[in-house]
Amino acid sequence: MKTLTVSLDERSYPIYIGSRILESGEILARHLSSSQVMVVTNETVAPLYLDKVKQCLQGKQSAAVILPDGESYKSMESAMTIFDGLLAGKFSRDACIVALGGGVIGDLTGFAAACYQRGVPFIQIPTTLLAQVDSSVGGKTAVNHPRGKNMIGAFYQPLCVLADTSTLDTLADRELSAGLAEVIKYGLIRDFAFFVWLEANIEALLARDADSLAYAIERSCLNKAEVVAEDERESGVRATLNLGHTFGHAIETGMGYGTYLHGEAVAIGMCQAADLSRRLGWLDEDSVERIVSLLRRARLPVKPPVDLAVERYLDLMAVDKKNVAGELRLILLEKIGQASLPMEVDLELLRATLSEYGRV
Amino acid sequence: MKTLTVSLDERSYPIYIGSRILESGEILARHLSSSQVMVVTNETVAPLYLDKVKQCLQGKQSAAVILPDGESYKSMESAMTIFDGLLAGKFSRDACIVALGGGVIGDLTGFAAACYQRGVPFIQIPTTLLAQVDSSVGGKTAVNHPRGKNMIGAFYQPLCVLADTSTLDTLADRELSAGLAEVIKYGLIRDFAFFVWLEANIEALLARDADSLAYAIERSCLNKAEVVAEDERESGVRATLNLGHTFGHAIETGMGYGTYLHGEAVAIGMCQAADLSRRLGWLDEDSVERIVSLLRRARLPVKPPVDLAVERYLDLMAVDKKNVAGELRLILLEKIGQASLPMEVDLELLRATLSEYGRV
Repeated sequence: MKTLTVSLDERSYPIYIGSRILESGEILARHLSSSQVMVVTNETVAPLYLDKVKQCLQGKQSAAVILPDGESYKSMESAMTIFDGLLAGKFSRDACIVALGGGVIGDLTGFAAACYQRGVPFIQIPTTLLAQVDSSVGGKTAVNHPRGKNMIGAFYQPLCVLADTSTLDTLADRELSAGLAEVIKYGLIRDFAFFVWLEANIEALLARDADSLAYAIERSCLNKAEVVAEDERESGVRATLNLGHTFGHAIETGMGYGTYLHGEAVAIGMCQAADLSRRLGWLDEDSVERIVSLLRRARLPVKPPVDLAVERYLDLMAVDKKNVAGELRLILLEKIGQASLPMEVDLELLRATLSEYGRV
Repeated sequence: MKTLTVSLDERSYPIYIGSRILESGEILARHLSSSQVMVVTNETVAPLYLDKVKQCLQGKQSAAVILPDGESYKSMESAMTIFDGLLAGKFSRDACIVALGGGVIGDLTGFAAACYQRGVPFIQIPTTLLAQVDSSVGGKTAVNHPRGKNMIGAFYQPLCVLADTSTLDTLADRELSAGLAEVIKYGLIRDFAFFVWLEANIEALLARDADSLAYAIERSCLNKAEVVAEDERESGVRATLNLGHTFGHAIETGMGYGTYLHGEAVAIGMCQAADLSRRLGWLDEDSVERIVSLLRRARLPVKPPVDLAVERYLDLMAVDKKNVAGELRLILLEKIGQASLPMEVDLELLRATLSEYGRV
């Protein structure tokens, strides 16, 4: 088992990465001092792992909220369902909430924990690759609004993150690929050597080679932890973690939450960001092709849906947290391994990317 | 005009207290650097003061959300209405939200500001006595849940508080009295000299003598600012600001939000806390009578509603943020001018207070 740390002074916390750490129960027990514990999970994950978590809760007051699976349940309605469960059980301010699932469960549960009684402790147990390498780390919590992804949320750090790599054995292939999009993202924005390693090992990752997966998760978390420690509230460099996300969020919102997995939409968005970077003269054709090729090999989509018209696309992108006073701002690539800070983009170049690239 | 400061390091902010400061517009303009401003207010306050605020917003993108008046609108539904307005207008993360109204508007708007895009700046313009002396200061934001007051919220500090005492000219008598409950609270929990001053000046306050009101607001804010600076997130002394509130919240929730004004319910609760303190041998009969008498002179109710049965009362009180792992904890009075920290109470003594006291 590896232990990394997200360094945020008194809000610092460990990320545990390893096989079968959920089964042993020791790590979870170490961080669960509360006498009341609420587990939030979904209908896919509950039959697989809820019992393992419950075994650590003997002697405590515990309950579980089991939501349907999918991005469309990352909503205020689901948050209210969690609040209902907490209040019905008279859970107090020292109760602990455990998020057991993928990115949807983690983001939603973190938000509920941030708001319940103005904040109760919570623990992340991510069970998808995407959640283990990205969403469970760093304290960004949120629910979606019909008009925009993650528009309602809080910065709220967990007590710890428990990434049990053996939970990936049960992950659908499509979900594995979606997680790889965020893994590749770290290579693109700040870790060229990792990008090269991924080019050499993408087939091993898809074949779920345990050592390769463990390494990819650890290196991803290390990148994320460094960025978050430097800029917790996204006043600067943290925004680079959103490479491809403004495009991707527009796809997710525009096509209806759940049509594209988050990682799939981000993969398309990163290709578009690369294309736009090429139009600015930053990336050469070969670099763009290298990026698209790796994402394709990871079995990810690299083209936006044909039925998302350019003007609608632009309108959806106008609702983005990086925008300032109505100006659209994007993360672009100066080269593979180096992202720009959010920058205003020429609207005609953006239109060119959205229309030409998208219509292939 | 007086200026006090809530000292919270980089989150410190000023409280401006004075007559006609809204009209001049200068203070508001000083703190409004955003080019997008959303004003949240209600149907009672909008006709009186919204235009004055809008005059300061020329040249900016601005909009207003006008909600119905009343505690029952301090809900997640109202927060969603604010989010809808913000997203429809494509308000970005550097937009400013202005809360123009009483405690309901301030708490609700502060919560919406804390959550919108994970936090945007906001300004408090309290227009009721209760909001000017208590709820607008200190960063406690929340909405109610059907099962409990303020159960969903955040600690989130405003950019500034602008308490224009001339807005109290239009305040209903009943609202003025409700505000006095929180004013008297400061005397009870930590400022005996202020309690004595209030005994001598309660009629002047009810007659809306401008100097007396200004003094009472300033001294209340000073007390609140000191407590908040010492303990922002309520790990200790801040809880004493909740004297009477566990009783009061039970009344508000149990009777339906809006039946009792918050200050009215707190007045009753402070009488019950005094009665329970007497049963513990801390307060003598005379002190209890002094407290009840002052609240009565402020035209506040001092007895709980007869149709709130003891067991239902206890059940409602069990949902309270001060409780720990199912144990009911209350703020009591060691003497007039000194409150206890939250403490477990003997259930039989509490029943005695709830039944005997309530049935007179």
